[in-house]
Amino acid sequence: MNSVPWDFFFNPRSMAIVGVSKREDDYVNHYVRTLVEYGFKGKLYLVNPKENEILGFKVYKRVVDIEDEVDLAFLAVPGEAMPSVLEDCGIKGVRAIIAFSSDSDILSASGSRGIGEAIRKAVKRWGFRVIGPNCLGIYRPSSGLCFAHGFPKEPGDVAFLSQSGGHAAAMGWLGASIGLRFSSIVSYGNAADIDLPDLLEYFKEDPETRVIVIYVEGVRDGQRLMRALREITSVKPVIVWKGGVTEEGSKAVATHTLAMAGSWRLWRAALTQCRALIVSSLEEAAYVALTFSLITEKRGYDKVAVVSISGGEAVSAADTCSALGLKLSKLSDETLSELKRIVPRYGSSINNPVDIQLAALDPDTYGEILRVLARDPNVDGLLVLQSMEWPALYRGVEGFYELVDTLCRVRKGEGKPIFTVMQPRLLHTEYVKARDQLLKTKIPVYPTLKLAALSITSLSKYYRPPTLK
Amino acid sequence: MNSVPWDFFFNPRSMAIVGVSKREDDYVNHYVRTLVEYGFKGKLYLVNPKENEILGFKVYKRVVDIEDEVDLAFLAVPGEAMPSVLEDCGIKGVRAIIAFSSDSDILSASGSRGIGEAIRKAVKRWGFRVIGPNCLGIYRPSSGLCFAHGFPKEPGDVAFLSQSGGHAAAMGWLGASIGLRFSSIVSYGNAADIDLPDLLEYFKEDPETRVIVIYVEGVRDGQRLMRALREITSVKPVIVWKGGVTEEGSKAVATHTLAMAGSWRLWRAALTQCRALIVSSLEEAAYVALTFSLITEKRGYDKVAVVSISGGEAVSAADTCSALGLKLSKLSDETLSELKRIVPRYGSSINNPVDIQLAALDPDTYGEILRVLARDPNVDGLLVLQSMEWPALYRGVEGFYELVDTLCRVRKGEGKPIFTVMQPRLLHTEYVKARDQLLKTKIPVYPTLKLAALSITSLSKYYRPPTLK
Repeated sequence: MNSVPWDFFFNPRSMAIVGVSKREDDYVNHYVRTLVEYGFKGKLYLVNPKENEILGFKVYKRVVDIEDEVDLAFLAVPGEAMPSVLEDCGIKGVRAIIAFSSDSDILSASGSRGIGEAIRKAVKRWGFRVIGPNCLGIYRPSSGLCFAHGFPKEPGDVAFLSQSGGHAAAMGWLGASIGLRFSSIVSYGNAADIDLPDLLEYFKEDPETRVIVIYVEGVRDGQRLMRALREITSVKPVIVWKGGVTEEGSKAVATHTLAMAGSWRLWRAALTQCRALIVSSLEEAAYVALTFSLITEKRGYDKVAVVSISGGEAVSAADTCSALGLKLSKLSDETLSELKRIVPRYGSSINNPVDIQLAALDPDTYGEILRVLARDPNVDGLLVLQSMEWPALYRGVEGFYELVDTLCRVRKGEGKPIFTVMQPRLLHTEYVKARDQLLKTKIPVYPTLKLAALSITSLSKYYRPPTLK
Repeated sequence: MNSVPWDFFFNPRSMAIVGVSKREDDYVNHYVRTLVEYGFKGKLYLVNPKENEILGFKVYKRVVDIEDEVDLAFLAVPGEAMPSVLEDCGIKGVRAIIAFSSDSDILSASGSRGIGEAIRKAVKRWGFRVIGPNCLGIYRPSSGLCFAHGFPKEPGDVAFLSQSGGHAAAMGWLGASIGLRFSSIVSYGNAADIDLPDLLEYFKEDPETRVIVIYVEGVRDGQRLMRALREITSVKPVIVWKGGVTEEGSKAVATHTLAMAGSWRLWRAALTQCRALIVSSLEEAAYVALTFSLITEKRGYDKVAVVSISGGEAVSAADTCSALGLKLSKLSDETLSELKRIVPRYGSSINNPVDIQLAALDPDTYGEILRVLARDPNVDGLLVLQSMEWPALYRGVEGFYELVDTLCRVRKGEGKPIFTVMQPRLLHTEYVKARDQLLKTKIPVYPTLKLAALSITSLSKYYRPPTLK
């Protein structure tokens, strides 16, 4: 197998878009406009045998007509046209191809999985490498590559490798809205040529990537995937979301990426053995990734102190942490006697979870309590249930922002990780402003207790695996 | 035991607030302002031995000084003052009391659980009934009773009975933001006198309430709770969220409502036997309740047809439904051949989940597909993964609203339930507008697949229990 021309995929000097349409509501037309909007750094060549000009670009009849060299070709042509377009790419000397095109196993007359076969034949004959078919391609903000409006323009350090284009897009949009930033998102579809283990080899070395998230339905070579995972998890955390873990899900996989979903029991055992971190939804994948992106201290995080404004929230936090295997810190005697001094008496509890009631509304008392807890050597990190409504509705929005400032100061001053559960229930504008400030101070913000507890557990599993305890 | 004067609690002609403060940042001061803002329909009397006037109200030194009769008294005084204030209430002939006051088991010098004991003694002596202590009291929009700013002003048909004041407030705020509307929220705290079974007796008969949600940490009389649950679930669905299901959670319960959390295994068996629907977080409680509030047709909902714009989402939907025991409908041959005609070929799958790709962007094709599925006798309901970003970013916001209109028309025209997963990732304003339209058409909107699947499963369990299959 030829080595993959990664630079042509992720940092191409020129790119041909084959099968672009004049219609503004066409996906590929939008794709071109997205590339322009995101400042694609290479040259762009449009190809369509029936057009002369689209979006101000000269349109070539065939790839072979382009005068310049073509690093990367994006193919959006009907299945019937794929063999000849692939041949044109071969003749032209294109070495990297993204095959957007797809055919449906069920609805196509032949059911022959035609595009995949055409690609495999062409790869053998021409030596180029192909991502896809049935994929959206690559988002790489540092190169100005993007396949969907609304993705963040600034780059980050999380790579998302997704067999599903829909999930790839959803992750970009969810990321944009929760503060998750990406080095790349790769939608790799049916993986007729380049498969997940190939991609992992690239991202293991990619200096722009610190955290890797995967959505995978099936893989051709399981042994090779395990080898690749084992190698990569020794240097970077890998979060895996597997599609097709149930019988119904497997059936859906068979008509989606045409993959064999395989036994979830075997997958789970293999992933665990390779130290991959397992999640089971888009939200879980996104928030665990956000956590690894923000919390870079390599230490254990498995004993947390919980701070809440209400007893009920304290109980729920204890239940949720415990159910996910996260321990509540046993506070030191010194901490307990300090808290006894600071926390007002009524309705509160200084046991961990620390239910501080109205003290959570006064920035000074609040800061004092957080600092005492952060300094306890038995505490790995603080899980803070940050109420928005109590302070904002009872002391005004400024009162709420003062508490957010306090959290940020404690995070900076004490150097212990703080994890925050804060929900955008009312006051959406204020929520967004406060959340952005917390994220900038490396405090992850979760919408639910469960996402917070899962994220902290994942940190612990990765940075302090059981064998090292 | 004296019968509970429910009308005095939920529709009082007069109410005394004992222990109100002049300070505007005090909770009880805010409580008074909230009552005024929400249009409390009775007369309001403020009591504080040290003040003459607060918020324009004359302030009485003691409850006995009030010239009028007092239906309900809200007590927010320090624990030490409780016995004498309770005695004043007795002398005055007050029959219904909400005890906001709390003392902490840990931090109080005696650890005597003083307020609870004082209440029990006073109940015996004076014959009045008490909700609390350690509670926020009652929100009953039809009577203008409210304990927190930001709650919805219009009433609904869901009652939330919460042992935790924090969760009671959080539910009101979450409800306000997701379209859930309440007949009542009762924060009943440590339940020194009135306990959950009493409340259930009231809400079984309450004509304003169709759906009941409970957050409970512990109960004094388990047998009585089971009897009450069995009776009430035969007429109204009851959704139960239990606090203290883990060892850590139980410990937190002991310092919160001072209850014995009990064995979760026993609780779970008892709840299931009583046909209560079990949930495990604020979000689950809220969305399952929203579902019962909107979907009033008493039929099975356990076979759904899933409609998605992407194969990855289809796979995730199949996995999630399957994991929660929800079956995907086997579509009839007629439906399949209709879909074959309508759904465009590329990348789609007409098996259930029905992955319709770009057809999900065209209102006419979309409507046709939804109608064909709704008419299939094998389909109990449609689970629609409604993309916002694809239509809005690629065809403009109007294109998105057209799809929402289409959903509403199919719901009205075909009379089959539609459940929608739609996420507020980008485009928050448009999201809120579309969601409100969907809710008005009795289409629940969920932020995650899991909440949708859990809600549909709960409908099925309640309306078509296993024994009737």
